[in-house]
Amino acid sequence: MIARNVHQQYEGVGLVERRTMSWLEPLQLDSGAHLGPITLAYETYGKLSPARDNAILLLHALSGDAHAAGWHANAAKPGWWDAMVGPGRPFDTDKYFIICSNVLGGCQGSTGPASMDLASGKPYGARFPVITIGDMVRAQARLLDRLGIDQLHAVAGGSMGGFQALEWATAYPERVRGTILLATSARSATQTVAWNTIGRRAIMSDPRWRGGDYYDGERPTDGLAVARMIGHITYLSEPSLERKFGRAFQHTNGPAFSLESEFAIESYLDYQGTSFNARFDANSYLYITKAMDYWDLPGRYGSLDAALARSQSDFLLLSFTSDWLYPSSESQLITDALMRLGRSVEHVDLPSTAGHDAFLVDYQPQGPIITEFLDQLGG
Amino acid sequence: MIARNVHQQYEGVGLVERRTMSWLEPLQLDSGAHLGPITLAYETYGKLSPARDNAILLLHALSGDAHAAGWHANAAKPGWWDAMVGPGRPFDTDKYFIICSNVLGGCQGSTGPASMDLASGKPYGARFPVITIGDMVRAQARLLDRLGIDQLHAVAGGSMGGFQALEWATAYPERVRGTILLATSARSATQTVAWNTIGRRAIMSDPRWRGGDYYDGERPTDGLAVARMIGHITYLSEPSLERKFGRAFQHTNGPAFSLESEFAIESYLDYQGTSFNARFDANSYLYITKAMDYWDLPGRYGSLDAALARSQSDFLLLSFTSDWLYPSSESQLITDALMRLGRSVEHVDLPSTAGHDAFLVDYQPQGPIITEFLDQLGG
Repeated sequence: MIARNVHQQYEGVGLVERRTMSWLEPLQLDSGAHLGPITLAYETYGKLSPARDNAILLLHALSGDAHAAGWHANAAKPGWWDAMVGPGRPFDTDKYFIICSNVLGGCQGSTGPASMDLASGKPYGARFPVITIGDMVRAQARLLDRLGIDQLHAVAGGSMGGFQALEWATAYPERVRGTILLATSARSATQTVAWNTIGRRAIMSDPRWRGGDYYDGERPTDGLAVARMIGHITYLSEPSLERKFGRAFQHTNGPAFSLESEFAIESYLDYQGTSFNARFDANSYLYITKAMDYWDLPGRYGSLDAALARSQSDFLLLSFTSDWLYPSSESQLITDALMRLGRSVEHVDLPSTAGHDAFLVDYQPQGPIITEFLDQLGG
Repeated sequence: MIARNVHQQYEGVGLVERRTMSWLEPLQLDSGAHLGPITLAYETYGKLSPARDNAILLLHALSGDAHAAGWHANAAKPGWWDAMVGPGRPFDTDKYFIICSNVLGGCQGSTGPASMDLASGKPYGARFPVITIGDMVRAQARLLDRLGIDQLHAVAGGSMGGFQALEWATAYPERVRGTILLATSARSATQTVAWNTIGRRAIMSDPRWRGGDYYDGERPTDGLAVARMIGHITYLSEPSLERKFGRAFQHTNGPAFSLESEFAIESYLDYQGTSFNARFDANSYLYITKAMDYWDLPGRYGSLDAALARSQSDFLLLSFTSDWLYPSSESQLITDALMRLGRSVEHVDLPSTAGHDAFLVDYQPQGPIITEFLDQLGG
């Protein structure tokens, strides 16, 4: 996230508001279940062209939301990709109409496990159906239909946002001209499933989780904190941890010989756990990580080549040298398959020490590459 | 661990028994506190020579114990390093007298937080003093004194066992002729501290932990399971996870669309959590990981060179190419410092896909290297 001085708040796209769109008709899910009514929270930046052909859909990662850019009234910081979105920025609002929606299953305005289940009159909790990346994208397609956008200039996302971008490119190939994939993969690796499993285990073994029905009482904050802490370490590289925290103690010059937090890295993790609890719902964490675990494009279509053969868009892939959660080799696999298929594809492996987080924080080298890719896409 | 057919039980060093040794005199700890009386559980294999000059001290890792080799009566598997210890094996009991003791703070017979605190008449729990690697080694030195061993032919250990071996070589240089370091480091990296912190947080936020006083009731099994699962993933490489588990489902051919465990990797983690709870004490996990976090030889002596300048032994370092928890670069740092100091040092970076666990499971390539190192050490 980009911390800003309050005097600079009105740079970029300025003040923005979250909107919602709802559908009474249930959404058919990959599991066979139906979910409805559904609501998606979304934001837009820039103006849709008269030809309705300049829309770009941004897709957020596990802990993201619809607020990609600009400032909410009285907010301390802007949207999660603000540096990338605005007049003259890579996702240039002078040229493009940018859309970002909170994923289905989320907790920032879109229908998720914290939403009211009309059948029971209570929040869904663990009665929420297990969803997939495909379900998230199917809901987004409804949003585009309602906005009157047949074809997107581009889809773009990092990490789980990249899963959704790949799903768009293969499930709705005729609706996507350009696909931008950052720090992502065509399937969740075993290790990713393992980290997610441990996070879910921490949440579900927190006694305050209460089978998912905690909305009328205390929340499973200990479990969600542990899950978030695990995630955070996987998002950072060991060199970046060494540089930021090293072996420094938070309040003393040496060991306190106590079991409590005393290293700076411990205080950082405590803070991450606490602040995540203030903005995220533990059940959404369960459902979204499960959707990530199911993500397996080669498995679904028989092979990566068979999956990508469905696509019609141009592709840009950005990976980051120190990303060990979604290593560059995963982007290279996608690139190799697209080249075998004769697709237009560019892969840039950017040097970085920021780990997986690089796609959010090392935005400067990404800018010109994304600008050029978007400019040259056919209209 | 090496699974064996029961018919082969009496290979190696055969049936062994755990012994204990106790001291009434309190041990002075690095924190300034005193701990006593103390007991160490230990095992020995082979015979001490009349000159008392053929002893080798094996040092175990976080979850290890004194049972390095041979078989306990009716046991399903042998000691944790059985393949390496026995007649004709690298730690050759025809030549050497091998000793292994459970660390101070442990839960397999040595004094730890589950031990009775004579002052209160209850188990120590969280009143156990915070200990260091130095304290563990100081206790081991008492054991050697009692066994009448002035100088060790060698010390050897992997991971946290390597911490202890380095502590031996620098705190008791005159007592060590050879130091064997496997998959280890001269200080805990920030990421290691982070993983340990998250594990401790999981245990201490389990309501059954009850401030450490759980010995008269239910144990914090959920917290310890999460801590162990995190550890396990850090011990394995992503390629080994892919090879062993991939994206296979445990009981079905496809997703069950449930929040419960369904991937094979999830079942594996569940099993690791459960089986660890059957043999390990959560408070010991807290204290031992804290001791690991404090491990910082360069910090203690001003620099790695200053620390290693204290040593007088020959050194053998083995690292493993896929170990990302204690990467080869950490062994190389130690090797470089020893070379600057003109010490006799050999570092072999062994190709492996087994991750950090390689030091326990890829024992075959280690054998001849260790044999040769031990043979050529001065008497």
